[in-house]
Amino acid sequence: MKETRQILAEAKAAAPLLGRCGTEDKNRALHAMADALEQRMEQILAANAEDMQAAEGKISPVMLDRLKLTPDRIKGMADGVRAVAALPDPARVLGRTVRPDGLVIEKTAVPMGVIAIIYESRPNVTSDAAALAVKAGSACVLRGGKEAFRSAYAIVSALREGLIAAGLPDNAVSLVEDTTRASARELMTAVGYVDLLIPRGGAGLIRACVEEAKVPCIQTGTGICHVYVDSPCDLEMALSIVENAKTSRPSVCNAEEVLLVHRDIAAAFLPRLKALLVDQRRAAGEPPVELRLDGRAMQFIDGMPAGPDDFDTEFLDYILAVKVVDGVEAAVSHIAAHSTGHSEAIVTLSDEHAAFFTKAVDSAAVYVNASTRFTDGGEFGLGCEMGISTQKLHARGPMGLSELMSYKYVIHGNGQVR
Amino acid sequence: MKETRQILAEAKAAAPLLGRCGTEDKNRALHAMADALEQRMEQILAANAEDMQAAEGKISPVMLDRLKLTPDRIKGMADGVRAVAALPDPARVLGRTVRPDGLVIEKTAVPMGVIAIIYESRPNVTSDAAALAVKAGSACVLRGGKEAFRSAYAIVSALREGLIAAGLPDNAVSLVEDTTRASARELMTAVGYVDLLIPRGGAGLIRACVEEAKVPCIQTGTGICHVYVDSPCDLEMALSIVENAKTSRPSVCNAEEVLLVHRDIAAAFLPRLKALLVDQRRAAGEPPVELRLDGRAMQFIDGMPAGPDDFDTEFLDYILAVKVVDGVEAAVSHIAAHSTGHSEAIVTLSDEHAAFFTKAVDSAAVYVNASTRFTDGGEFGLGCEMGISTQKLHARGPMGLSELMSYKYVIHGNGQVR
Repeated sequence: MKETRQILAEAKAAAPLLGRCGTEDKNRALHAMADALEQRMEQILAANAEDMQAAEGKISPVMLDRLKLTPDRIKGMADGVRAVAALPDPARVLGRTVRPDGLVIEKTAVPMGVIAIIYESRPNVTSDAAALAVKAGSACVLRGGKEAFRSAYAIVSALREGLIAAGLPDNAVSLVEDTTRASARELMTAVGYVDLLIPRGGAGLIRACVEEAKVPCIQTGTGICHVYVDSPCDLEMALSIVENAKTSRPSVCNAEEVLLVHRDIAAAFLPRLKALLVDQRRAAGEPPVELRLDGRAMQFIDGMPAGPDDFDTEFLDYILAVKVVDGVEAAVSHIAAHSTGHSEAIVTLSDEHAAFFTKAVDSAAVYVNASTRFTDGGEFGLGCEMGISTQKLHARGPMGLSELMSYKYVIHGNGQVR
Repeated sequence: MKETRQILAEAKAAAPLLGRCGTEDKNRALHAMADALEQRMEQILAANAEDMQAAEGKISPVMLDRLKLTPDRIKGMADGVRAVAALPDPARVLGRTVRPDGLVIEKTAVPMGVIAIIYESRPNVTSDAAALAVKAGSACVLRGGKEAFRSAYAIVSALREGLIAAGLPDNAVSLVEDTTRASARELMTAVGYVDLLIPRGGAGLIRACVEEAKVPCIQTGTGICHVYVDSPCDLEMALSIVENAKTSRPSVCNAEEVLLVHRDIAAAFLPRLKALLVDQRRAAGEPPVELRLDGRAMQFIDGMPAGPDDFDTEFLDYILAVKVVDGVEAAVSHIAAHSTGHSEAIVTLSDEHAAFFTKAVDSAAVYVNASTRFTDGGEFGLGCEMGISTQKLHARGPMGLSELMSYKYVIHGNGQVR
């Protein structure tokens, strides 16, 4: 097994070579990486079959399905890499000032250097993250989940073949071979080697990074998202938005976990919501949503009483915590106390309430009359994403290529002194 | 003495009130703060006299002069606060996208929340930092040096009077009363209270922040800046730039500490440099520059042999480490190994060398044919600065008002679901 520190040192050495590449060189490498994924399909499928066999019975069927690769999925990964090649190069001049003394100051987006990514079991994250890093001109060090190691290794081997075929250093993309917690900690503390660490995973990983990371780090992905149904509002719209935010894909971070309802509209709204999310879904053979109700909501509909943790839990499941509030100020206060700062929505007919909500809610994405499910790089028009930042420094919300860049000032003079 | 945690809690409570203020309210507060500084001049001077008396004999004359306040200096501080009021409000819409489904996505600059600043003894930093934070819509918690505590306390008391007079919460600006290391550590670890920590100080403080900070942090101010004199170059220009970068203000972070000279030009350049920086300055009664020479430089001029640490030291004094290198690639390698990532310059007549240098040097500001002394918010046209960031995440180089902001996405729809 290769030492993690050795992998980091090789990535650091490769980073400037990649960083100096022009757009054409990077795109050529991305196409070669995509081609190599398809050429190595057989090896990748074989490695994945071993991962699947080892994981069977140990992880849930949903997780097993996420782990599974098929020829179509590998083709999809290769097409994803080609799609990144088609995106505009984020290495560009961001601003230009000519000073009175003739100094020309250009603010220029530049690569970070080495980007480390800690993620879990979906093998496609391996190629997505590598493609974004290469396009952003940074070397990447990938540390995936133990269950997907053989798949990730086969994928990274193919990507590195592609880099070499394009004349770029293969160490621009590498996989950490140690899948114990020690390697995650090593990445978090590799000052001087890791310029940006992106943890993509559950609350435990994020907390470990906040506690232990000494390298620059961007927290991603934990989403306790709220929808607040205000009074007055369009009830049909509110029903449609809550249904979409909760049930269209409950396992993702932009799904709704908590519903706040204005007391004046609760009597009209909650019974219809229960009919839609519980009764009609059950009748249609779809998983019904389990409603966990605070005391006031229990006055309007039946459901399980909410426990003490239900307003602070990312369920990622067909579960919705429901609370009746006195109005938009109470909704904002609840969100300030319980949100992870990902995405929140208000459904309202009041421009004044909408303006207060968007100003006062301190989250990455704040919606008026739309579903929280739109918080996504593709939906925002960024073309891709490395994750959803829930922190305030550097990047917030979907992280596209621009958010993977640093910048520097390049100043041209003709002898100016101060 | 007020507990630091209590001060942080009050700042956190004040932050949203300040954050929701419009431009006019913030500017009115800044003018009231400036007026209060002038009205409280007598108290501030009295407090400063106590600080001066206590510090005399304990700190260097240069430090004593930095600590000293005069009516003119206080007037200058008030004018500095008014100058911040005159700057454009950084809370603005940064970008706007209308998606095919009609969703309107606005990327909007928003306040950080609570900004904590750890700094040293110059009292004017107290009012500068507070003014920038208020204009950026963030509450600030200031933790100054022990020697300047009474001065800072009097200044902050005046600023808080100004806030109250303008109808804003006085807790938008506060001073940490504990001046032991414990309070610095408390700021570094106040997760949930401090949204951005800016340490402004020496290498020790910066290192402590990297090691111990659990809150988002921007490293500022350590500058081991290099000037590389290439071949071919304009020798007169090279002499003028090196002289300016080294001697115009050696105590600041954008001053030159290391000179790299191309071997082909060393014989022509170094004797003239020694005449300019050593002999002529001595003859003129100015402090001569102490040259610390590597072995190759010693072949051309006399001077002290460079010791093992001289190429890794921020002298902040009339001292210059000098090294002869084989060319631009060697210069870039030396800088990569020894720079703090602040400011570096090349003096050259070769466009090719200039392009390589600006691309390959990974520092906040990279100059061609100009002095490193221009790395400054005012010189870059930002109107002000909170410090010079030497990190790659969020902000790099001079941090103006825009760099003190976060952003969020505000999305307006009419019922869109995904």
